[in-house]
Amino acid sequence: MKKYLAEMIGTFVLVLMGCGSAIFAGIGLGTTGYGVTTLGVAMAFGLSVVAMAYTIGNISGCHINPAITLGVWSSGRMSGKEAGGYMLFQCIGAIIASAVLYILVHTGNEAGIEAVFNSTTTTGSNSFLPGNIVPAFIAELIFTFIFVLVVLGSTDEKKGAGNLAGLAIGLTLVLVHIACIPITGTSVNPARSIGPAIFAAIEGNCVPLSQLWLFIVAPFIGAMLSAFVWKGLRSDN
Amino acid sequence: MKKYLAEMIGTFVLVLMGCGSAIFAGIGLGTTGYGVTTLGVAMAFGLSVVAMAYTIGNISGCHINPAITLGVWSSGRMSGKEAGGYMLFQCIGAIIASAVLYILVHTGNEAGIEAVFNSTTTTGSNSFLPGNIVPAFIAELIFTFIFVLVVLGSTDEKKGAGNLAGLAIGLTLVLVHIACIPITGTSVNPARSIGPAIFAAIEGNCVPLSQLWLFIVAPFIGAMLSAFVWKGLRSDN
Amino acid sequence: MKKYLAEMIGTFVLVLMGCGSAIFAGIGLGTTGYGVTTLGVAMAFGLSVVAMAYTIGNISGCHINPAITLGVWSSGRMSGKEAGGYMLFQCIGAIIASAVLYILVHTGNEAGIEAVFNSTTTTGSNSFLPGNIVPAFIAELIFTFIFVLVVLGSTDEKKGAGNLAGLAIGLTLVLVHIACIPITGTSVNPARSIGPAIFAAIEGNCVPLSQLWLFIVAPFIGAMLSAFVWKGLRSDN
Amino acid sequence: MKKYLAEMIGTFVLVLMGCGSAIFAGIGLGTTGYGVTTLGVAMAFGLSVVAMAYTIGNISGCHINPAITLGVWSSGRMSGKEAGGYMLFQCIGAIIASAVLYILVHTGNEAGIEAVFNSTTTTGSNSFLPGNIVPAFIAELIFTFIFVLVVLGSTDEKKGAGNLAGLAIGLTLVLVHIACIPITGTSVNPARSIGPAIFAAIEGNCVPLSQLWLFIVAPFIGAMLSAFVWKGLRSDN
Repeated sequence: MKKYLAEMIGTFVLVLMGCGSAIFAGIGLGTTGYGVTTLGVAMAFGLSVVAMAYTIGNISGCHINPAITLGVWSSGRMSGKEAGGYMLFQCIGAIIASAVLYILVHTGNEAGIEAVFNSTTTTGSNSFLPGNIVPAFIAELIFTFIFVLVVLGSTDEKKGAGNLAGLAIGLTLVLVHIACIPITGTSVNPARSIGPAIFAAIEGNCVPLSQLWLFIVAPFIGAMLSAFVWKGLRSDN
Repeated sequence: MKKYLAEMIGTFVLVLMGCGSAIFAGIGLGTTGYGVTTLGVAMAFGLSVVAMAYTIGNISGCHINPAITLGVWSSGRMSGKEAGGYMLFQCIGAIIASAVLYILVHTGNEAGIEAVFNSTTTTGSNSFLPGNIVPAFIAELIFTFIFVLVVLGSTDEKKGAGNLAGLAIGLTLVLVHIACIPITGTSVNPARSIGPAIFAAIEGNCVPLSQLWLFIVAPFIGAMLSAFVWKGLRSDN
Repeated sequence: MKKYLAEMIGTFVLVLMGCGSAIFAGIGLGTTGYGVTTLGVAMAFGLSVVAMAYTIGNISGCHINPAITLGVWSSGRMSGKEAGGYMLFQCIGAIIASAVLYILVHTGNEAGIEAVFNSTTTTGSNSFLPGNIVPAFIAELIFTFIFVLVVLGSTDEKKGAGNLAGLAIGLTLVLVHIACIPITGTSVNPARSIGPAIFAAIEGNCVPLSQLWLFIVAPFIGAMLSAFVWKGLRSDN
Repeated sequence: MKKYLAEMIGTFVLVLMGCGSAIFAGIGLGTTGYGVTTLGVAMAFGLSVVAMAYTIGNISGCHINPAITLGVWSSGRMSGKEAGGYMLFQCIGAIIASAVLYILVHTGNEAGIEAVFNSTTTTGSNSFLPGNIVPAFIAELIFTFIFVLVVLGSTDEKKGAGNLAGLAIGLTLVLVHIACIPITGTSVNPARSIGPAIFAAIEGNCVPLSQLWLFIVAPFIGAMLSAFVWKGLRSDN
């Protein structure tokens, strides 16, 4: 049970900090001068993983992403029942984070709200332009493949990176966001997409919810591809 | 006594470098072209922790933050008397740092001062718009909860990150600043708020001093929540 | 054979993520507000090396760069036949990456394509102004010398950085890109130049292909210089 | 002799990459869109130290800064004769680096030169406005004190950071540059100031050479203060 709670807290932190940085500081250099630009948002997502990897890594392994859990399960490192529990609690954590962001955005008065917004998004939800469905699908699939490959490789008992795995994985997520934010906002993590999509719908924007399938299907295919490729690479012959 | 001096020096460095970067380079891209934007200020606060963690970490543990000291004390890792000493010397270090920044800002001639300023703040003090008191309180509470949770988790003897803890904690402080600077300027550290609030008042701006209570109460509640949650997560059953 | 596949995948990731970030987010702060500026592109290239170093480092050594392979071979750490195989598969990986980027850029509809572009390049190819051939050659030679020197030094069995080598090497590539992007776009890696040059030619821009020799010759000379200098530095007398 | 050559190469890299990034990409976001802003320059200086620390750290200790050598000598960790040799070769390395930058800047044709410049400096020299001499002196003294304190602390045999020292020291130099670039351009290293000052004078700008004394005296006082403070902090009673 501790493992599930750790996954819930970890995913809560990832979505709160990653999407929160997009909401509060995403565009940058506006009238208030407070923004961090796309690079800062990329760092926020990646450093959330670093933070949680060295906090709950020795409790649950710090997946905080259903695609990673799928890849780890596909690699035979955990049971299907445990994987299901991980995914469920990851989604719960993401939804709680989006609820907290909703409260942070809507409880100030008008002047206050204007001051804290430095973005065009109020939820950090993932979406793509209708004409971009093909590149969006390819991007989410390949970038998740790369991200989960780094997870499986760097945490491998024999071939891995030891104590540095958490840092390597977090910096890889920074990397993925730098390249992918202009295409889809970057998911590579179904839980990270579900929470903001729900609250975007509550605010009246149903596009993220209607496109949510892509941010589940493409990352899952990418993660299974990682498990297949890593199995081949790590074998001794 | 060495411990207390180490905490004083460490907090001095954190406030001098963090608030100093906000004062000298916070806005960025102005007429002089010297700024680092919000992302650079976030990095300055976090890298100050990295710098000090690997310098005084083996002397005092490098809390340099009364909220961390409260969390460590709540976790039963230090005595109440020692915690009080830590907090006192942290505040002294922060006030000295703000005094040095006051000197740096006020000893140049007019042209010189204009050249070194790339910001809207002369002290780096924390504050919030009156209408934003609810999100400010929630943000400081939750972000301190996350920050201190990473501290307690990554420095845990059994479940922690070993020698990488200092890096993980510093990068977490970068993360917290990326998301929180637009809301309150980011405290999550009462000592870091006290020094600049005093010198803002000396300069005639009493808002930070009048709002100082929030930057003490909210971080302290967040830190105690961390101690409670980490106690639960780390237990073996 | 596993080694060669690992080098192919690693170079694929380097070119896909590095050049991809230049294509999708290179300029930054345009109408969409999605860019990461030159600093973000520099980080993308360097973090790709960090990602791969801790994933395939224990399989192939993670050269993912013919200049590094040349330096390692010159240092007597691998056979000529193996070095040739490494270089071949590095180039294959780079070309596949450029093909994927070509697909990502050309499969959206017009509005979609416009949204994902935040750059002046569609391939991330290396080039220089005709009048800049001397500084371009010097820059690629010296920066490759520095980069490969860090590789040889930090991975040295006796004098090296142990498990931290991958991080040090990746951060050095960030560094090289910060200084060199305005001069040539930064190659220091012939494979990284070949892939984009081919697809730039397919799009009708033959300049990168016609200048490709410089991005092979200069890095190779720099790498051999590194091997010579490191051999001198590491000797015990 | 190997130690001296290592220090020469290391300081060459620091000045070439640090000042080079200031020259080629320092301002950022101009017409060419190639800049990295002050944050990128700060990272270039710091990552140069990371690069060299893990390359020549086990050969010479990677001081690459006369102020650090002074601090290490003051701490009784090296002889005066060796310290003198270190400082001499550091200055030689810095002057060679400035010569290479001079060549890179002056060998392109007019259009080429315009394309590679994204800055207001052609040498990366340190200077301050006449009216700012007091804050400039205080800043260089205190920031060198902090920087050298991190060096002495993190490399301490008993209380230090082990293999992570190079990363901590490099990130501290990033930090120092973020805060100090608007004030003096940041020296905290006499060798780093000497090379560019000479070539600025060759280009007809004698201000950096006339102010050079400050970038020698203030860092040296700061470094001796560090040695004194660290001696006190590390003692067991």
